[in-house]
Amino acid sequence: MGMPPRLDPAALAAPIVLAPMAGGPSTPALAAAVSDAGGLGTLAAGYRTPEDLAEDLARTRERTRRPIGVNLFAPPAPPVAPERFAAHAAAVAEEASELGTAAGDPRHDDDGWTAKLDLLERDPVAVVSVTFGLPSAEVVARLHATGSAVWVTVTSVAEAGAAAAVGADALIAQGAEAGGHQGGFVDEPGREPLGILPLLQLVRAAVDLPLIAAGGIVTGAGIAAVLAADAVAAQIGTAFLDCPEAGTWVGHRALLGGDRPTAFTRAFSGRRARGLETRFAREHEGTATVAYPQIHHLTSPLRAAARAAGDPERVNLWAGQGHPLVAPRPAAALVTALTAEADAALQAAIGRRAATAVSDPR
Amino acid sequence: MGMPPRLDPAALAAPIVLAPMAGGPSTPALAAAVSDAGGLGTLAAGYRTPEDLAEDLARTRERTRRPIGVNLFAPPAPPVAPERFAAHAAAVAEEASELGTAAGDPRHDDDGWTAKLDLLERDPVAVVSVTFGLPSAEVVARLHATGSAVWVTVTSVAEAGAAAAVGADALIAQGAEAGGHQGGFVDEPGREPLGILPLLQLVRAAVDLPLIAAGGIVTGAGIAAVLAADAVAAQIGTAFLDCPEAGTWVGHRALLGGDRPTAFTRAFSGRRARGLETRFAREHEGTATVAYPQIHHLTSPLRAAARAAGDPERVNLWAGQGHPLVAPRPAAALVTALTAEADAALQAAIGRRAATAVSDPR
Repeated sequence: MGMPPRLDPAALAAPIVLAPMAGGPSTPALAAAVSDAGGLGTLAAGYRTPEDLAEDLARTRERTRRPIGVNLFAPPAPPVAPERFAAHAAAVAEEASELGTAAGDPRHDDDGWTAKLDLLERDPVAVVSVTFGLPSAEVVARLHATGSAVWVTVTSVAEAGAAAAVGADALIAQGAEAGGHQGGFVDEPGREPLGILPLLQLVRAAVDLPLIAAGGIVTGAGIAAVLAADAVAAQIGTAFLDCPEAGTWVGHRALLGGDRPTAFTRAFSGRRARGLETRFAREHEGTATVAYPQIHHLTSPLRAAARAAGDPERVNLWAGQGHPLVAPRPAAALVTALTAEADAALQAAIGRRAATAVSDPR
Repeated sequence: MGMPPRLDPAALAAPIVLAPMAGGPSTPALAAAVSDAGGLGTLAAGYRTPEDLAEDLARTRERTRRPIGVNLFAPPAPPVAPERFAAHAAAVAEEASELGTAAGDPRHDDDGWTAKLDLLERDPVAVVSVTFGLPSAEVVARLHATGSAVWVTVTSVAEAGAAAAVGADALIAQGAEAGGHQGGFVDEPGREPLGILPLLQLVRAAVDLPLIAAGGIVTGAGIAAVLAADAVAAQIGTAFLDCPEAGTWVGHRALLGGDRPTAFTRAFSGRRARGLETRFAREHEGTATVAYPQIHHLTSPLRAAARAAGDPERVNLWAGQGHPLVAPRPAAALVTALTAEADAALQAAIGRRAATAVSDPR
């Protein structure tokens, strides 16, 4: 006898996967609310210790009996010599000293990859999604052996093909519009990320796996769009940032829904990420290099001190391009409303096309 | 008694507007083929003299009796002092001398705006679309008096609101994925353009006009996506570049459908535009400034000589992010196939959602 089938994203009652939002916004309460409303809630394992993650899992399961997902950071590229970002370190140290703290130790680590995999083997979840790299076929097989589906974040056709080759069950196709880090395998400064619509079209032409679309989706019409482009669900983060269940910093919430533009920056973490524009990123982009997670750790005390001081200009205010439409709303109500609006948007599009066929003046 | 109603983009039998592709690819044969297949063919007036445009109009009407559109460049920002791009001019001169020619005169002009408006008043078309700026309410009224609908290219919510305020009939919402020039009112180097999906969601929340979506749409699924996001049509350029009816340079055609990435560049024209990566743009991006159309005229002889020499690395190979899916195909067949695929993609998305509702395991 076999295991039950792995979770199929096409079978979600609400075509919504909660994006992992490591570093605060993701909480057990948020993940549970999304799963309970028929979507898939995701716990962000990133920046959490394995013990934190075990605790998050327990607290989530207290709140929902529905399937949940866990997002892991794949091990990063090898460390960069600190001399390569010495100017950035000096700038961070000066900014930090203005807030009475110091730059952090720019250490390199793998975010507890092995221990977290071990934990998810002992205490499996419906879906393990992987960001920042390609899991090996062996890792995918280990997770499959527990009954977990494995979803891989991709930003290009090449990454999609590689993920299919190691046995991924579905692909999270992330476009340039997305808030937070670009989750592909490599951070290439000279290459512009694809928008979500070209990415979906290109990946679909190359790979047959179910697609989950991420990037700039904040309305039911946005979800309908990616469903029409053959995705089976939308992965949504920014729209949940101002939910009461989220752990989002109050100074971050205050700027959502406004007209501050977003931009890519490596100044906070050493990896390309999209957030609300800040003075820190604007002034120090020039010295930031590709050095993740070293620069993440370098700026960590600065960001904490800035939050404590109520200074958003030195905080990584991750947000996607759709953030001006974000409003505070309980997560379950948001899932329900977005799903109904998405279904209505698909029906409306069909209806408009049918009316056209009737009225064709030809 | 009044005039007949202005063309409603929602009434097109094929939800496809041919993007204006000034500088060669746009031809009367291409516009006529798209209109004849039920979409809206567009003549690119840009870089053509008023006499050329009159001739193009006549030749298009010989081929189709269906409605057509003409795209005009709005007058550009005031000229920039040539000293501001002296280093770029020197680089262009050196590249040009390698091909036995010289840099062009970096003159500033308005592309015959007034004469072309006069022509379109004498010889009106169904749709006049405007790119690179906001037409005045007076210009919109003049065009309306001829029966023309006026569509304005926008890249932000602010531009959408301004276009609505001057009486535009519809908005062409252009995302960052689009090939060719970004057609918004201002070229702001410090601001990242929005992707088409966030742009559609944000503009729809602010403005009630019909939306035509442009940027990275090369498949029926891509069209279905923007229809689901409440656009009434997709404006498509790149997918038509390799049609036999297009005037696309053969060296440009040879690289479409391949895996060369696209990137934004100002090196060829002094305005942000997306094209296939080239050595020229890579090496000379650093000296290019916002100076349109001065830098366009500066590089014009270089580009012509490079085409004659068969050297694509010094040619503006405009293409959107979806170009790897482009294949040679007659324009009418492409319109018909894309339309059928778009309608099928909408139906498939509805069908998948209905199956989910039945199978919801809750």
